[in-house]
Amino acid sequence: MTDSSTHQHDPAAGDAARPDGERFHAIDPRDGSRLEGAFDEATRDEIRAAGDRAGAAAPSVAAVPTARRAEFLRAIARHIEANGDAIVRRADRETALGLPRLQGELARTTGQLRMFAALLDDGSFVGARIDTALPDRRPLPRPDLRRTTVPIGPVAVFGASNFPLAFSVAGGDTASALAAGCPVVVKAHPAHPGTSQLVADAILAAAHETGMPDGTFALLQGRTHETGGELVAHPAICAVGFTGSFGGGTALMRVAAARERPIPVFAEMGSTNPVFVLPGAARERGEAIADALAASVTQGVGQFCTNPGLVIALDDAATDGWTARLAERAASGGGAMLTSGILSAYRDGVTARSTTPGVRVIAVADAGTGATAQPAVHEVDAEAFLGDTALHDELFGPATLVVRCADVAELQRVAAHMPGSLTATLHLALGEERDADLELARELLPALVARAGRVLVDGVPTGVEVAPAMHHGGPWPASSDARATSVGTAAIERFLRPVCFQDVPAALLPEALRDHNPLGIWRLVDGTWTDGGIEPRVAGAEPADDS
Amino acid sequence: MTDSSTHQHDPAAGDAARPDGERFHAIDPRDGSRLEGAFDEATRDEIRAAGDRAGAAAPSVAAVPTARRAEFLRAIARHIEANGDAIVRRADRETALGLPRLQGELARTTGQLRMFAALLDDGSFVGARIDTALPDRRPLPRPDLRRTTVPIGPVAVFGASNFPLAFSVAGGDTASALAAGCPVVVKAHPAHPGTSQLVADAILAAAHETGMPDGTFALLQGRTHETGGELVAHPAICAVGFTGSFGGGTALMRVAAARERPIPVFAEMGSTNPVFVLPGAARERGEAIADALAASVTQGVGQFCTNPGLVIALDDAATDGWTARLAERAASGGGAMLTSGILSAYRDGVTARSTTPGVRVIAVADAGTGATAQPAVHEVDAEAFLGDTALHDELFGPATLVVRCADVAELQRVAAHMPGSLTATLHLALGEERDADLELARELLPALVARAGRVLVDGVPTGVEVAPAMHHGGPWPASSDARATSVGTAAIERFLRPVCFQDVPAALLPEALRDHNPLGIWRLVDGTWTDGGIEPRVAGAEPADDS
Repeated sequence: MTDSSTHQHDPAAGDAARPDGERFHAIDPRDGSRLEGAFDEATRDEIRAAGDRAGAAAPSVAAVPTARRAEFLRAIARHIEANGDAIVRRADRETALGLPRLQGELARTTGQLRMFAALLDDGSFVGARIDTALPDRRPLPRPDLRRTTVPIGPVAVFGASNFPLAFSVAGGDTASALAAGCPVVVKAHPAHPGTSQLVADAILAAAHETGMPDGTFALLQGRTHETGGELVAHPAICAVGFTGSFGGGTALMRVAAARERPIPVFAEMGSTNPVFVLPGAARERGEAIADALAASVTQGVGQFCTNPGLVIALDDAATDGWTARLAERAASGGGAMLTSGILSAYRDGVTARSTTPGVRVIAVADAGTGATAQPAVHEVDAEAFLGDTALHDELFGPATLVVRCADVAELQRVAAHMPGSLTATLHLALGEERDADLELARELLPALVARAGRVLVDGVPTGVEVAPAMHHGGPWPASSDARATSVGTAAIERFLRPVCFQDVPAALLPEALRDHNPLGIWRLVDGTWTDGGIEPRVAGAEPADDS
Repeated sequence: MTDSSTHQHDPAAGDAARPDGERFHAIDPRDGSRLEGAFDEATRDEIRAAGDRAGAAAPSVAAVPTARRAEFLRAIARHIEANGDAIVRRADRETALGLPRLQGELARTTGQLRMFAALLDDGSFVGARIDTALPDRRPLPRPDLRRTTVPIGPVAVFGASNFPLAFSVAGGDTASALAAGCPVVVKAHPAHPGTSQLVADAILAAAHETGMPDGTFALLQGRTHETGGELVAHPAICAVGFTGSFGGGTALMRVAAARERPIPVFAEMGSTNPVFVLPGAARERGEAIADALAASVTQGVGQFCTNPGLVIALDDAATDGWTARLAERAASGGGAMLTSGILSAYRDGVTARSTTPGVRVIAVADAGTGATAQPAVHEVDAEAFLGDTALHDELFGPATLVVRCADVAELQRVAAHMPGSLTATLHLALGEERDADLELARELLPALVARAGRVLVDGVPTGVEVAPAMHHGGPWPASSDARATSVGTAAIERFLRPVCFQDVPAALLPEALRDHNPLGIWRLVDGTWTDGGIEPRVAGAEPADDS
């Protein structure tokens, strides 16, 4: 059984039990009105209790066989789907992202859960390695060494404002941590507490249905930084998953580093996602690129970590053409942003950019008033861009900045001065100018690879595929640990740590490490990958697979 | 060409160039005398210059083909061997570890370098993953996704006092970082500056011979914490490898976390390495276990991270027998310790332990005086042990503490209260009491796996095999990141970060990701491991392997 440490406010309970708690409501971003339902800021006692329960549950959760963990993840997906209409409706009212987008995001969320379930069924994710004994080696025999991975322990997950489903309560961080065998305590994003509660209910129902241990999952509600900070500071927490702002991510990193036992924080903090439109591509199909960029910049009112915030091109007639088209197409992409705070930060950012020396406004409508954000397209010459690092920072929302380069050398200089980013994109000519663009791309590529977690060609960075080969992370400030991904199957690796078993009798070995490979998983055996079994050990007093 | 930013003092240079530098000498631990050769504490300017050069070199080093990186590592091994006698002699004078041990450690060091060279030749270490395009997928096509790994950037490596070769200038951290394609700046341990310089000379000669870029490697000498701290704070440094004390490791972690761009610190900080002698094993072969433990506790005057600092057993007649034997056998294992500081910390620790209420001295000779450390064996009842966490801390040196448990339940309680450790060991009966010991081991195992990076049976934790399945790391406080190993091929993973290539034309793809798998490496293709090629992409305007 899994406890539910959060709930909508029960007036009968009184406030004596939560002396430092406060109540808050969700706000409809479309009109600023209060939505129904009150939520209680988690008290210190509740945070402590959630952490304690997760810590106490960790050994039992780690011991749950992977087949049942997979069943749990699939049950979460089913329970989310069973209440899908209500979840999507509430999410739309709390985020204004629109039903079609949220229906898609719900499918992505359940798809992620099932992907991790399939990863568990496959079993190879443990990264098993076996070096068989060399009893005759000189000067010393080599012992039998077998390495697998185990759960790292309870994980604190922070819901993201911009993905109320796929990067929130049952999003990729939670799915990968539960798949790894870690208890999870989610701190809900305060912009969508109702959605969070509905999804948490689905997780709790699934945990009940599949007999997961008490303490496997808990949800904490809260609007204050203190609530999140106290969760990260809880001694039982072993790792943190976060998607959100640079300020939020770095604040949690500071808390994690100041603990008596510091813990890793996997924070994906967004980025500028530079797009390079190479000269041939601009001439060949500048308008098509502009259309794709406009759609990408304004999708979800620009509220994506992979929003293309910088477009770099030569200062030529082709760029004149596609930038005009981009400005025209982007203009209609306004809408309500997730929160009033995000909206006002966006407006301040647009105003600051519009008044930055050297920056020219190409499209920005009515940024200062009204309930909805308007897209903004600016341009700047590369020299001014390189001289003002404030222009290198992310402006969260439907904005992009075109950087015009006098020549190819300047384009390379801009590429070499980009901050770390989740993605970098190249547009290349497909027709007769392809060779020239390919040659330039080859020269730019090392700088892009050095600064981005994903490099893409002839596409847009928004729309992150959930797949084994995806990497969603990038060098600072895009993420706190460029080695970690928060999307795709490799996300599970954040929450696993290796353990080596040396000369351990078969009777005590995890199944993943047994000679005859009962799980049928891929293992690195004496330096070679194989999904077969191995010959029983030469040394050893008992049958290798005796239990 | 690689620069040498360190050198023995050149009197002609004067001190004007190093206003904040100081000169120091190595000390012979056997008699406290000053060894020949003076070393200059790196100045701020030198630290800054070394970091700057490493940063500038990073793109060129990353671009060096893996075959040449392998050649570089093998050349380092050759140059170390060519000067092996001088290196080992100097190391013995600086560390008092003795020629046989140091000859073995030199062989281990060159073996590690060649192991990483072989890993580069094999090529599969990049962890390539390919998800081929699904152009017909609905609602959206799947792009072509290909993931490989790239070097993380310049790495700062801190030499360890207790392994002047294998965990120092050309040790596992340096070998794995160079193998990953990262420039390395080593901060030499001040206890063996001469050894460090000789090994650095070998690395520089190898870099020259194999044409590695300027800035690939640099050595900094220094005795002060500031020197190491400034290196970690240098903006170009992207990761830190450290083996040493808890105090040293946590100090570097604080510096790394306080940077404008925090970086990972992979610190292996030692541990108590509990050994559980199960009841049947104690009765069956307590004396043999005692002999093995005595040798392990006193090996290298107890100066191993994996020294068995705690031995847990039942409080019975069998334990009376083997503890007496352990005390007798350990008594002869004294010797000079690495430094006077380590010796005095050891003596203080032994004195504190001897005077701790409930702790009984079984063997401790003359801990307070003389130039050499004497082994110390203490015992304590489990109840007193559980009540005094100071007894759970590592005592670096030839000491061990026997914890006597009233019954099996108490033994389990001790197992569940151990701090994080590099290793945990179980001794099991081999004969007629095997089943009972196996049953108890099965109950203890989850607690040990939760607290150790390596679990071994019927062996001693000292003697860490260098192999793919080794894991040398463990939960806090054993190491800063339980997911990382500093020994074995997986050590390279600390210094690699993934990059995903989306819809990137074959002409721009790294070789590791080309369709026909020109490197012949193991790759995860559409969820299956294979070392073969893949069919050319369905979509795509050009031949898949056109360059």
